[in-house]
Amino acid sequence: MRIGVLTGGGDCPGLNAVIRAVVRKGEGVYGHNIIGFRHGWRGVVECKTIDLTVSNTRGILHRGGTILGTSRTNPYKTEDGVSRALDTLKRERVDALVAIGGEDTLGVASRLTDEGVRIVGVPKTIDNDLSATDFTFGFDTAVQVATDALDRLHTTAESHDRVMVCEVMGRHAGWIATYAGMAGGADVILIPEEPFDVDDVCERIRHRHLRGAGFSIVVVAEGAVPKEGTMATQDADVDQFGHVRLGGIGTILQNEIEGRTGFETRVTILGHIQRGGTPTAYDRVLATRFGIEAIDAVHQSDFGTMVALRGADIIRVPLADAVRELKTVDRRLYDAASVFFG
Amino acid sequence: MRIGVLTGGGDCPGLNAVIRAVVRKGEGVYGHNIIGFRHGWRGVVECKTIDLTVSNTRGILHRGGTILGTSRTNPYKTEDGVSRALDTLKRERVDALVAIGGEDTLGVASRLTDEGVRIVGVPKTIDNDLSATDFTFGFDTAVQVATDALDRLHTTAESHDRVMVCEVMGRHAGWIATYAGMAGGADVILIPEEPFDVDDVCERIRHRHLRGAGFSIVVVAEGAVPKEGTMATQDADVDQFGHVRLGGIGTILQNEIEGRTGFETRVTILGHIQRGGTPTAYDRVLATRFGIEAIDAVHQSDFGTMVALRGADIIRVPLADAVRELKTVDRRLYDAASVFFG
Amino acid sequence: MRIGVLTGGGDCPGLNAVIRAVVRKGEGVYGHNIIGFRHGWRGVVECKTIDLTVSNTRGILHRGGTILGTSRTNPYKTEDGVSRALDTLKRERVDALVAIGGEDTLGVASRLTDEGVRIVGVPKTIDNDLSATDFTFGFDTAVQVATDALDRLHTTAESHDRVMVCEVMGRHAGWIATYAGMAGGADVILIPEEPFDVDDVCERIRHRHLRGAGFSIVVVAEGAVPKEGTMATQDADVDQFGHVRLGGIGTILQNEIEGRTGFETRVTILGHIQRGGTPTAYDRVLATRFGIEAIDAVHQSDFGTMVALRGADIIRVPLADAVRELKTVDRRLYDAASVFFG
Amino acid sequence: MRIGVLTGGGDCPGLNAVIRAVVRKGEGVYGHNIIGFRHGWRGVVECKTIDLTVSNTRGILHRGGTILGTSRTNPYKTEDGVSRALDTLKRERVDALVAIGGEDTLGVASRLTDEGVRIVGVPKTIDNDLSATDFTFGFDTAVQVATDALDRLHTTAESHDRVMVCEVMGRHAGWIATYAGMAGGADVILIPEEPFDVDDVCERIRHRHLRGAGFSIVVVAEGAVPKEGTMATQDADVDQFGHVRLGGIGTILQNEIEGRTGFETRVTILGHIQRGGTPTAYDRVLATRFGIEAIDAVHQSDFGTMVALRGADIIRVPLADAVRELKTVDRRLYDAASVFFG
Repeated sequence: MRIGVLTGGGDCPGLNAVIRAVVRKGEGVYGHNIIGFRHGWRGVVECKTIDLTVSNTRGILHRGGTILGTSRTNPYKTEDGVSRALDTLKRERVDALVAIGGEDTLGVASRLTDEGVRIVGVPKTIDNDLSATDFTFGFDTAVQVATDALDRLHTTAESHDRVMVCEVMGRHAGWIATYAGMAGGADVILIPEEPFDVDDVCERIRHRHLRGAGFSIVVVAEGAVPKEGTMATQDADVDQFGHVRLGGIGTILQNEIEGRTGFETRVTILGHIQRGGTPTAYDRVLATRFGIEAIDAVHQSDFGTMVALRGADIIRVPLADAVRELKTVDRRLYDAASVFFG
Repeated sequence: MRIGVLTGGGDCPGLNAVIRAVVRKGEGVYGHNIIGFRHGWRGVVECKTIDLTVSNTRGILHRGGTILGTSRTNPYKTEDGVSRALDTLKRERVDALVAIGGEDTLGVASRLTDEGVRIVGVPKTIDNDLSATDFTFGFDTAVQVATDALDRLHTTAESHDRVMVCEVMGRHAGWIATYAGMAGGADVILIPEEPFDVDDVCERIRHRHLRGAGFSIVVVAEGAVPKEGTMATQDADVDQFGHVRLGGIGTILQNEIEGRTGFETRVTILGHIQRGGTPTAYDRVLATRFGIEAIDAVHQSDFGTMVALRGADIIRVPLADAVRELKTVDRRLYDAASVFFG
Repeated sequence: MRIGVLTGGGDCPGLNAVIRAVVRKGEGVYGHNIIGFRHGWRGVVECKTIDLTVSNTRGILHRGGTILGTSRTNPYKTEDGVSRALDTLKRERVDALVAIGGEDTLGVASRLTDEGVRIVGVPKTIDNDLSATDFTFGFDTAVQVATDALDRLHTTAESHDRVMVCEVMGRHAGWIATYAGMAGGADVILIPEEPFDVDDVCERIRHRHLRGAGFSIVVVAEGAVPKEGTMATQDADVDQFGHVRLGGIGTILQNEIEGRTGFETRVTILGHIQRGGTPTAYDRVLATRFGIEAIDAVHQSDFGTMVALRGADIIRVPLADAVRELKTVDRRLYDAASVFFG
Repeated sequence: MRIGVLTGGGDCPGLNAVIRAVVRKGEGVYGHNIIGFRHGWRGVVECKTIDLTVSNTRGILHRGGTILGTSRTNPYKTEDGVSRALDTLKRERVDALVAIGGEDTLGVASRLTDEGVRIVGVPKTIDNDLSATDFTFGFDTAVQVATDALDRLHTTAESHDRVMVCEVMGRHAGWIATYAGMAGGADVILIPEEPFDVDDVCERIRHRHLRGAGFSIVVVAEGAVPKEGTMATQDADVDQFGHVRLGGIGTILQNEIEGRTGFETRVTILGHIQRGGTPTAYDRVLATRFGIEAIDAVHQSDFGTMVALRGADIIRVPLADAVRELKTVDRRLYDAASVFFG
């Protein structure tokens, strides 16, 4: 068989581990030919490929990013995208595809499956918000990076009697904020799932300080939103004259907390260091296992599936299920985290 | 209620996170009194306690070890141990116990439950070999430490064209070796579950070198054993004159590999750095969730249970089940790892 | 003797290591009494002290921040500040002071020396911009944190063909930017000492991309400034209607580069994680040696001095020299860094 | 010019940073041709070369080891070694050499200089024991790795009331032991420069325990030796029947301390993880500066020199001086460390 591999969407620690595993078992054990498409679906549309071999995928297990490059190109939103993609697959005599990506990438994979393309999906979201799998690789690394940052912020918060606001990733779900907040000893965790009242936040901080704690750590997911009417954030991005204001919810919170409590407040926005760099051991193992399972599925012609983690096991689920529902933070988990608030 | 907490057996990153969670919810939310017993069951037998409060358990989340100390004391193997333990619990008016430990500690907990003591168990084994829970805290940290070491050994192995043997923990099960080996790109992984033939190991290394790889990384669990008759290890610990030879299976392998292949071989024995120091974010979250669930179980008088991880959820299982069976490395996981061998 | 210790100004990894060393040798070897003043000079003005002993300074070597707290209080800018400070020293029978801090803190120390107070200074600036010492503790930690971040940004920049701007500390001198930029493989480093032309920056980035590099890493010190007339930054902080724009030079650069080159550009602002958390081994050793030398100087009544690093040796210099001159980035060092630009 | 580069002796974090800098400035700025010799002097004797270009030395800054490989081959101890080396240099039309290595490698460089070969040396010793330079790259990384290990050992020592012996590198000089011991809070540091009396060591440990400390950390350099007559170590490597005993001074100390004090004692031997893996920021900067200075020296025909660190500056010294004297641990530094003993 001749098997194509691609990585789409935002990058994520562990992508190279998946690629390496697919190649190692695909070529090394099954004897298939593996080619990589460059920059996600764009490489399929534009027919940009590189050969992948056991030899040229050595030593990439611990490397962040993706050797294939990535993009957000969607053939269904590109002129002639689908027909050009199908042409490429035909011309390159690609028997099957391993598509590694998130909601968008796998959504394309699901639709192309319906058009007869033989695809196995590998889920990828640093935000851990896909419902079909317990965890996705990259998430553990992001949580560890954020936790390391919180450990560092703790000592400086303590020495200066400050409030430290730390903005982490999570546009639609607060998994990183909840996990890192629990691991980093946060006093407040704000997530998209639970609109917050900034007065409550300030009240908790004041309460802490009254009881003798000189500092507070607030972890906020980038997608966290205030309850309607509690903060003028609807207008926060653009002022009355149409000037774009820089900075997201973290920066806004810094100003609100400092303004309302009078406590010196600082913000740290972790940004892209959460998604770059070497994966944790956990993510390397999960990504490797996903890669092995994906190539096994291809070899067994079990197409239209996606690999997933269930408990300690790797399973396969229908590709169509993969992107059906956003997995939001478990209520019991957030409750456990909130025991330590305030 | 007045609730006692103890930590027994080998130390493990995350113990302090459990203690902190028990106290934070036990005292802070439920209003119970929490006391700690020093050095595991020894503190119960000898009545050595310290008060645990929200205030004096602050700032311990990220600290390795256990603020309570630990020991391997077993009341059932100590003169008058059980009666003295029961006396202590009576005298100290302890209504319930949270016992954090491995097979031994929880075995005692299970037997004391039969004598009417109200106990909730929290599983702890850095080796991840308890069958009643998907994962135990401390394991992820050990795997990460071993993986970091393998990353470092890779570059020195490569520069010198050497075979590097890295001995990791795992007396009865090879979880750490398998995970760290997968994450660290090991070329051979030897575990207690699969007796090895040193000739096969050497053959794989030779094969690698023939194909151009100048170096090899061998990860060996301390409990790995050679197949009978393949290596003179039965006599390895003591020579013919009764002198104890220092060094374990790692050192023996180093000698065997170097002797049989002629390739320069070095051994690293990671030892206690795998079980000390700050826990990973993963372990901090798992330990915190275990602590929260344990105090909830106590509060709900759900005694004779042990908390456990099942998928992404924390559940409770009968304490008696906890230690029933050694969880050995999953066959499919090891097969996935072995794709990268040789 | 009865010796006071204080830490002033911004916190810095290594402060606790200095305190521990002063106490360990001061009490443990010389038999002096050591007391700590809380929150820098504020604790002297307001007479807030805590006893420091070998026993209560155990286990702080690896901890970031300062157990004494810190502030920017300057007695000379506080009503009755100096007289109240002198009163405190008299009332508490303080024979000598060890003042750990930067330009401000040591400036006060120098003036109080003139008033007869017996002081030994320990230099502290995370920015490494004191001319009297080769290096200051905290700097190495900040550089390491920034370098780790750059390592992570590299892989994500590469996978997405992006320009990554990383803003690091350094208001008046670009030491952190230069060191971290060299260590992290930056393609452009912008420092306060060298006003930059944003057109040149964009040109270099374009040039890189023309030659096939798909990404660029720009490290910018928070105090870096554009050459006059090359960018509208004079007006950047406040728009024409007086609205404060959030974000510093990093954010401005992101916008300028993306706007002028059309390359997708992202900014990361490391902020306080550079000054919090556990010190590197280098900083722990330097801080410990400074502490030992400071208490030796006190014991020998060598007042009005500051400890400093010269080559591999710890020496003493006049306190008045300490703050005389800002140490800017060495021209040859920056030239070495610039070999790797563009 | 056509310039050869080689790396000899034990590997060391930072070697690739030197190579990258030499190539980047040599080819990129000066327009020279750079070739690499494989495996140190062996590559010169056997004429094994690879072209080095700006392009193929990209992305190696943060990688441990050496892309050139290394060996301990000494042409002066190899049959026809010198004449074959000279032949190679002639045949390959090599105008000058940059030799990166320790005592042995630079010793060869110095002798070849006398035979008319144009060489600039770059000092490399993880042990930091070259007298001509304040510090060598790789040392800071080794100290950091050892310090991280000590941080981890602390918590496990504390939880179990144990003595932890940690053996670190340093055959002839105790720099790593002294720095890591100071940074890691060691209670005893044993170095080659100060023969130790094991009774004193045990006495200090007992003294600590008497005063309430439940644990002790002993850092020992691999080359540390007992005072004559105080321990039967002369015979330690080989028992009376000629059997080689495994394990070095760390293992021996473990046995002696446990035997004499009765305290449970464990040993960790860090081994090769100290010399592998990614360099610290400090080492990357130092190595890069050395590389820049070396190629500058070559370009200026300043041969027979070695680059070195003096204070914060990079200087050049005669190659012959480089290896003249072993730099042992500074007495004042060790005294500072010993303040914290026992």
